Amino acid sequence: MKIGILGYGNLGRGVECAIRQNPDAVLSAVFTRRNPADVKILTEGVPVLSVDDAEKMKDEIDVLIICGGSATDLPVQTPKYAQYFNVIDSFDTHAKIPEHFANVDNSAKKGGKTAIISVGWDPGMFSLARMYANAILTDGCDYTFWGRGVSQGHSDAIRRIDGVVDARQYTVPVKEAVDAVRAGENPALTTRQKHTRECYVVAEDGADLAKIEREIKTMPNYFTDYDTTVYFISEEELKANHSAIPHGGSVIRSGKTGMNGENGHVIEYSLKLDSNPEFTASVLVAYARAVCRMNKEGMTGCKTVFDVPPAYLSAMSGEELRKKLL
Amino acid sequence: MKIGILGYGNLGRGVECAIRQNPDAVLSAVFTRRNPADVKILTEGVPVLSVDDAEKMKDEIDVLIICGGSATDLPVQTPKYAQYFNVIDSFDTHAKIPEHFANVDNSAKKGGKTAIISVGWDPGMFSLARMYANAILTDGCDYTFWGRGVSQGHSDAIRRIDGVVDARQYTVPVKEAVDAVRAGENPALTTRQKHTRECYVVAEDGADLAKIEREIKTMPNYFTDYDTTVYFISEEELKANHSAIPHGGSVIRSGKTGMNGENGHVIEYSLKLDSNPEFTASVLVAYARAVCRMNKEGMTGCKTVFDVPPAYLSAMSGEELRKKLL
Repeated sequence: MKIGILGYGNLGRGVECAIRQNPDAVLSAVFTRRNPADVKILTEGVPVLSVDDAEKMKDEIDVLIICGGSATDLPVQTPKYAQYFNVIDSFDTHAKIPEHFANVDNSAKKGGKTAIISVGWDPGMFSLARMYANAILTDGCDYTFWGRGVSQGHSDAIRRIDGVVDARQYTVPVKEAVDAVRAGENPALTTRQKHTRECYVVAEDGADLAKIEREIKTMPNYFTDYDTTVYFISEEELKANHSAIPHGGSVIRSGKTGMNGENGHVIEYSLKLDSNPEFTASVLVAYARAVCRMNKEGMTGCKTVFDVPPAYLSAMSGEELRKKLL
Repeated sequence: MKIGILGYGNLGRGVECAIRQNPDAVLSAVFTRRNPADVKILTEGVPVLSVDDAEKMKDEIDVLIICGGSATDLPVQTPKYAQYFNVIDSFDTHAKIPEHFANVDNSAKKGGKTAIISVGWDPGMFSLARMYANAILTDGCDYTFWGRGVSQGHSDAIRRIDGVVDARQYTVPVKEAVDAVRAGENPALTTRQKHTRECYVVAEDGADLAKIEREIKTMPNYFTDYDTTVYFISEEELKANHSAIPHGGSVIRSGKTGMNGENGHVIEYSLKLDSNPEFTASVLVAYARAVCRMNKEGMTGCKTVFDVPPAYLSAMSGEELRKKLL
């Protein structure tokens, strides 16, 4: 399958790496909003083109993986390109998924193309874990814990504070809460009881540290509902110890079966990721395979991970899968 | 959906319980090889019929869940009934799946029916976990650990030894091995390094305990390759402490991404089950929903969990799923 990448940040670079790990995938072009001459990619011999030239390439690309941000890029880009290409995105604004789905569906159907939105690990693999577990254990409770990992959104929020040069925020699940859920205790947990937040902040020389710390801890939505710890560190320390982008977490469903709910069960899906964007990219490339197959079979319009038969993600045949992995 | 149960042992009873937890499912009949008058089921008003009468009910049942054993029942029953009914089974003899698949496929296609074989947790949910993880992390290692839980096959093997009245065998994963795998160390593990076996044995009065213990520990395939511990206990103790049928385990894949495999990732799917048959039954009922939908859409023949779009398992609509679980 010939893959195009639209947007060359951490995620786009991750997709480029993932393509090299899939012998049936080829990178055909990278599209950027920057000046193409300024963008150096890792793969030799592959053109970097202006995003304005993307449509011209529509017959040379089997699937376009759109690597923009969910806030402003994807709501525009995915519907726009879904009429010309089979597309995949990692749209992750949970509350706006129904609206995004409708827009992309409309556009993809118009062009006879197939789109899969909200692919990655959450939404994505975590959604699948929630869905399968809910279908199996109909009487139960769901829990999702994130981390320990870097939250890009929270790091950005800190960086916008006056006097902050750079920052890295880690979301950390509360061990006692995770243990209670794993033990099948079905605890009722507040936001504060589930996660804590750790902030590593580089401040400007002479900045009012106490004020920065107060602004972080009282920031609505982002920090007020959490126990937050702020560490001021040097730029060198940030670079040395906090430049990786790890993440992960667990989806746990605990439920009951039996005539009187006498038996308890715990289903857990968990991820420990050294690189959030590279793992997300690996999921995107597996779904790129699925989107090509679904389009060939005439399944057009917008889909999500819930609609994709698992076998479509794999390079193995049905026969091989049954023999080796069933 | 109107469900028939064929075979009323632990698994059949589990399916009966699971049906009560799914408002869109109704139990229509239980078919047994025993004298129907001798079989008391948990649900009032539902007929218990001879297995010989099953075919007569073919227009009154949407899906038949076949709850026989994999050794001799399912290889005959599933192909037989797949021409009359949409069927689900939990065939778990991994090496014989390709052959069973071909037989069931042939029969289901002849009757225009849909069959899903090897549904449960392994094969079943564990297979899905292996498959998704393999599609995402193409460069990695797979590990499956089972337990701590009761292995019916190993318990039966002990019961066949002279002088043994009853027995319960627990498969136990080796903690150090699981920890190393979770840490992403990709260890090479022998059979002995992955699991130990604990046997609780009730012996006849005056039996030669040393001989029984020796026979267990040296039994080929079942015990020789494992560190096995044998405890002789009283019948009362077995009944009091070992009558539950818990099981579970973990599927772990650990792999690398990046230009030079510089980032490691660990995907884990794990189950802790108080009742192995009731959990398996809950999976079967979710797939019963899928088999009905697939048949209505004209997708006939034999399928496995790899072929079923996840959304087909859920009672929720696509719209609800996207809103609530994506």
